[in-house]
Amino acid sequence: MSVLVDNIGELFTAGPDGILTDAALVADGDTIAWIGPAAQAPAADHRLDAAGRAVIPGFVDSHAHLVFAGDRTAEFAARMSGEPYTGGGIRTTVAATRAAPDVELFATTARLTAEMLRQGTTTWEIKSGYGLTVADELRSLRIAGEFTDETTFLGAHTLPSGADPDAYVALVCGDMLDACAPHAKWIDVFCERGAFDADQARQVLTAGAKAGLGLRVHANQLSEGPGVALAVELGAASADHCTHLSWNDIEALADGDTVATLLPGVEFSTRSPYPPARRLIGAGASIALATDCNPGSSYTSSMAFCIALAVREMGMTPAEAVTAATAGGAKALRRTDIGALMPGTRADLVVLDAPSHAHLAYRPGVPLIKAVMRAGAVRTENP
Amino acid sequence: MSVLVDNIGELFTAGPDGILTDAALVADGDTIAWIGPAAQAPAADHRLDAAGRAVIPGFVDSHAHLVFAGDRTAEFAARMSGEPYTGGGIRTTVAATRAAPDVELFATTARLTAEMLRQGTTTWEIKSGYGLTVADELRSLRIAGEFTDETTFLGAHTLPSGADPDAYVALVCGDMLDACAPHAKWIDVFCERGAFDADQARQVLTAGAKAGLGLRVHANQLSEGPGVALAVELGAASADHCTHLSWNDIEALADGDTVATLLPGVEFSTRSPYPPARRLIGAGASIALATDCNPGSSYTSSMAFCIALAVREMGMTPAEAVTAATAGGAKALRRTDIGALMPGTRADLVVLDAPSHAHLAYRPGVPLIKAVMRAGAVRTENP
Ligand SMILES: [Zn+2]
Ligand SMILES: [Zn+2]
Repeated sequence: MSVLVDNIGELFTAGPDGILTDAALVADGDTIAWIGPAAQAPAADHRLDAAGRAVIPGFVDSHAHLVFAGDRTAEFAARMSGEPYTGGGIRTTVAATRAAPDVELFATTARLTAEMLRQGTTTWEIKSGYGLTVADELRSLRIAGEFTDETTFLGAHTLPSGADPDAYVALVCGDMLDACAPHAKWIDVFCERGAFDADQARQVLTAGAKAGLGLRVHANQLSEGPGVALAVELGAASADHCTHLSWNDIEALADGDTVATLLPGVEFSTRSPYPPARRLIGAGASIALATDCNPGSSYTSSMAFCIALAVREMGMTPAEAVTAATAGGAKALRRTDIGALMPGTRADLVVLDAPSHAHLAYRPGVPLIKAVMRAGAVRTENP
Repeated sequence: MSVLVDNIGELFTAGPDGILTDAALVADGDTIAWIGPAAQAPAADHRLDAAGRAVIPGFVDSHAHLVFAGDRTAEFAARMSGEPYTGGGIRTTVAATRAAPDVELFATTARLTAEMLRQGTTTWEIKSGYGLTVADELRSLRIAGEFTDETTFLGAHTLPSGADPDAYVALVCGDMLDACAPHAKWIDVFCERGAFDADQARQVLTAGAKAGLGLRVHANQLSEGPGVALAVELGAASADHCTHLSWNDIEALADGDTVATLLPGVEFSTRSPYPPARRLIGAGASIALATDCNPGSSYTSSMAFCIALAVREMGMTPAEAVTAATAGGAKALRRTDIGALMPGTRADLVVLDAPSHAHLAYRPGVPLIKAVMRAGAVRTENP
């Protein structure tokens, strides 16, 4: 089955073609078959009339924690009244997640991924990390795997209450990894004061790589630290957060193969300073934007909101921000089949209720997702 | 026709009853007939099952400019790249609005009010102010009147290009007011350096009051100035923006009958410092939140987004922010029949896709509007 998308006001490809006007697009099966001048569009089985609206790639949310139970509204309200964010609340969610039946975790993940799709996200990564036992991490990854191929084993999210650090790291690198690796594509570690230090993070990442997993790092969120340097050294696909960076970190990211994944929803919801996006861009680093959707530090699932923050708070241009939220996310997942609109990529796209990609920043908070196509099928059409 | 709303997780009344649990509500015709313990709910013709979700009053957006033509995306992008906001771009919109046919202005206003309703706003004020001739202001108010009873004559929005200030103020207070007053409930003036000074603003407001209009003032947006003091002195219903306030201004607002209407979407989209909400609350002033939806300084129509900003950027609690966006807006429009859920008020309510009102700040950018009831009729149900 093929679909012609035409009458496009602006085709923001996030790829080599840049921004096209008077262009049309044909999806054949789950793939983009053709992009070119609207006047030369080939015939197709169906037509999606964009009615002058902008079309962008589906968002790629490369960082999300969607398998959890419980609610941290009270912690959020307390933080907004002045209490600092230390990451300690993660254990609240761990306790609730362990206690929840499978069906509850499944329902929450289903609800949040459906919410993401309605908001234009067509690829989402999902991490474990609220189990912190072999059985609970495995369970989280099994559930995550029902919703995405981009599953990440994050046994090293935080130290469980009362655990001995060395023994826990050995568990993560041993039995837990053995159980989880078959269900994960990636391994991740929270490298931060109060979580795991450079040596521990290196052990976790090295063991994960040996088990065939790709590497990701929660790095430099709360303070400058060794996370980013370690991520680049070990060839991680992404260093996430990057809130507190030294000039050495920025140079390392610019010279290396590691994407700097910025999560401004976290800074918004923890009232923290924002990452230095312009310095990263100036140095030549690759940037992704993601939500970090989780019940503690960033309970947004809206990539559009992250784009608006990237423009307002980090000085990114609307085009840079939309590119980071699409092609940037794909690069952070080492994917070339998604994140940009060109022949051969998966037919994942969003019709905006706006004439330009810039409206995602120009109209903050407004639901501007008119239609979402995922793998060639129109999955959502909003009024 | 009556509707029973039950299975409510949290009933945020924004009225004397505060936040109720285990409560149900019955709308009869367009009015709330009963609120009480769910177990004692009377029978009704229909049932709206909130399924454990929170219910809040419909948002009252007491400040919006919805009758305009043209787009200012380029100006927005330039501003985000460092150009300051001076209000000068209003004239771009004036030129486009004057040139647009009625049907285009009507369509834009219809699109934006529908967008507002989908996002939970059940009352919106609409200002003129992009016409600035007798005929064009009258046209804007006629169109506004098709969509709301809360129409505001804002001939004194800015000085038209090349106009003599005194002559223009005389026109606003004379022929323009004569033509517009029958189509407006309110008169408003932009009292600011570069717009209208205290004497001119006083002339406009005094003339409007004599013509039977209620008073509103765009005050203290870009700098401290005489706007707030004048608003309170003349008994205006609202002083809007209140970004730059002296201690005298805050005291005047606390002692007077004028609501301080905060428009944080403007500060977000012009990268300006936010109004001192906590100082206003501490002094005892009444606060409203509104969008200021307009194509220049704040093109958001999302009250939820304004609530999230109020909490993050102005230190309001979620409950204060939701109250300001509902009961506060009603007070700024001198309405007692909307903005709070209690027997006798209009049955305007929102079922949130969340268990608590706090999620509007806790989950920024996420469309959390599950269903909207306006005047007793369910107008929107989202997936
Ligand atoms: Zn994370
Ligand atoms: Zn305004």
